[in-house]
Amino acid sequence: MKCRICGQPASINLRSHKTAFCETDFLHFFERRVRTTIRKYRLVGKDDRPVVAVSGGKDSLSLWYLLSRMGIAADGIYVDLGIGDYSRVSLEKIKAVADRLGRKVFIFHVRDIFQMGIGEVARAIRRVPCSACGMIKRYVMNRVCMDRGYNLLLTGHNLDDEAAALFGNVLYWKKEYLWRKDIVLEEKEGHLSRKAKPFFLCSEREVAAYAIISGIDYIYEECPFSKGAKTLTYKGILGRLEESSPGTKLMFIKGYLNELRQMKMHDEAAGEAKEVIYCETCGYPTLGGQCGFCWTLKKLGLSYRVEFEEYG
Amino acid sequence: MKCRICGQPASINLRSHKTAFCETDFLHFFERRVRTTIRKYRLVGKDDRPVVAVSGGKDSLSLWYLLSRMGIAADGIYVDLGIGDYSRVSLEKIKAVADRLGRKVFIFHVRDIFQMGIGEVARAIRRVPCSACGMIKRYVMNRVCMDRGYNLLLTGHNLDDEAAALFGNVLYWKKEYLWRKDIVLEEKEGHLSRKAKPFFLCSEREVAAYAIISGIDYIYEECPFSKGAKTLTYKGILGRLEESSPGTKLMFIKGYLNELRQMKMHDEAAGEAKEVIYCETCGYPTLGGQCGFCWTLKKLGLSYRVEFEEYG
Repeated sequence: MKCRICGQPASINLRSHKTAFCETDFLHFFERRVRTTIRKYRLVGKDDRPVVAVSGGKDSLSLWYLLSRMGIAADGIYVDLGIGDYSRVSLEKIKAVADRLGRKVFIFHVRDIFQMGIGEVARAIRRVPCSACGMIKRYVMNRVCMDRGYNLLLTGHNLDDEAAALFGNVLYWKKEYLWRKDIVLEEKEGHLSRKAKPFFLCSEREVAAYAIISGIDYIYEECPFSKGAKTLTYKGILGRLEESSPGTKLMFIKGYLNELRQMKMHDEAAGEAKEVIYCETCGYPTLGGQCGFCWTLKKLGLSYRVEFEEYG
Repeated sequence: MKCRICGQPASINLRSHKTAFCETDFLHFFERRVRTTIRKYRLVGKDDRPVVAVSGGKDSLSLWYLLSRMGIAADGIYVDLGIGDYSRVSLEKIKAVADRLGRKVFIFHVRDIFQMGIGEVARAIRRVPCSACGMIKRYVMNRVCMDRGYNLLLTGHNLDDEAAALFGNVLYWKKEYLWRKDIVLEEKEGHLSRKAKPFFLCSEREVAAYAIISGIDYIYEECPFSKGAKTLTYKGILGRLEESSPGTKLMFIKGYLNELRQMKMHDEAAGEAKEVIYCETCGYPTLGGQCGFCWTLKKLGLSYRVEFEEYG
């Protein structure tokens, strides 16, 4: 297999794109694709002040690095879940990239605010860890944006993440999630920052290759709470389908985005707008009364407090 | 494991319904469920003149038999695809059930009309066999309804069939199929009979158990052309998901039906009606010009002819 560009031996074969590249030309290909995605879906504009949600994994660190190479200067936000070595090592990797890029990281320590790690918080509010973690991360990251004047939160969700989540939403037709997933989510002035996922159309394998070739040192371990998670089953299924029909994951996600666009146009034409309710304690969007974050603090007998360590 | 009704040893365990039955009580349970489905979705009315699409397999023969036990007298239609022993044995099984129920079967011989079997027809029009077969079956079965005064075509599609087809439609967001699948499809006066699938919510395993316990002799072999079909892959995936989360297939299909209902209500509220075009040769609904059946005959240099053998 030869590189499509230079004819030298290829080091990565992309079956879903029916092509192969050497390391250098893969980097250019990958960066060009992300740049095209950002432009086509208008993910980052000239006047935006973006911040990247970093976890220490390949996706978020690659995104942070790639944005910097594109001339998009962004600080980082990290939620330290208080999961022993896993959280400690993750933070080390993040600090190394922050140093390399010369950017700042806001660090939220779950143990400082909740006086316990994410596993115990989840047990206390009777949720699975992934659900409690998602709720806290979404909240805290938005808080940084609102308090520090960032209007755009960028996350490293890749094609495999999105396809697996969509798979679960479609399999059970989860109304509360199905038609709310998008490559960009609009802001609610004064309440919610805009959110965007520049790697929405990049597979996990492509992002991992980009990280490795770019010399980004990331944490390889999966979160210990992800064991047995259904999304891993769905990723496995989609991976096997992709193997027998390359391009399946991309078609699944792109087809969904098309369907979603049509629905939104339809709703707009019908003049349907959804009313948004805000948390009575902190102003975060909620389904009614208090948001999950404020409710959790109250349930644990703690008063409202959100503080960040700043690094860099 | 004991029968939920009589306490005797159970012979079938239905994990998706969290219950188990002995043979006799399973029969009652299964027939009651189908009766409920027929009533709830208004599949068969008092004034209907239904006909059953029979293939010789467990699903269609069980449906034919069950309808008869419910007092719904229906004749059968069989499309003989001209696949050697497979087609011959299928027809034998059908005739045996026709005799048992004292009903008539209309038989359409693909070889009589097309002068070749379905495999060769498919090659001649450059389609995969399943696509050519579906097109011819839909056409011929509707023809019987129109010509002989049946207003309702019942098919044996079961939950596994429907879930697998839906899976493929969702995976690739196939616009032409996705929102057109339903448990009942309305008629187009003078052109298209109503269609309904009473086993839509019954799993393949349940239907097979019903056939065996009822002493229905059906053809066990799958159609030789189905080897390697994607729907078999999708059935395998859904089967494994069902095993780890019983009820998944039912939730997938029921969630879809809900979504579909809301879309239809939405479209009706918006006053959106789809225009239907009819074949210029025979009057069958088409996307424009000639329908697939007439086009195929023309392509093969044959003139329009649809004839049936009548048995019983």
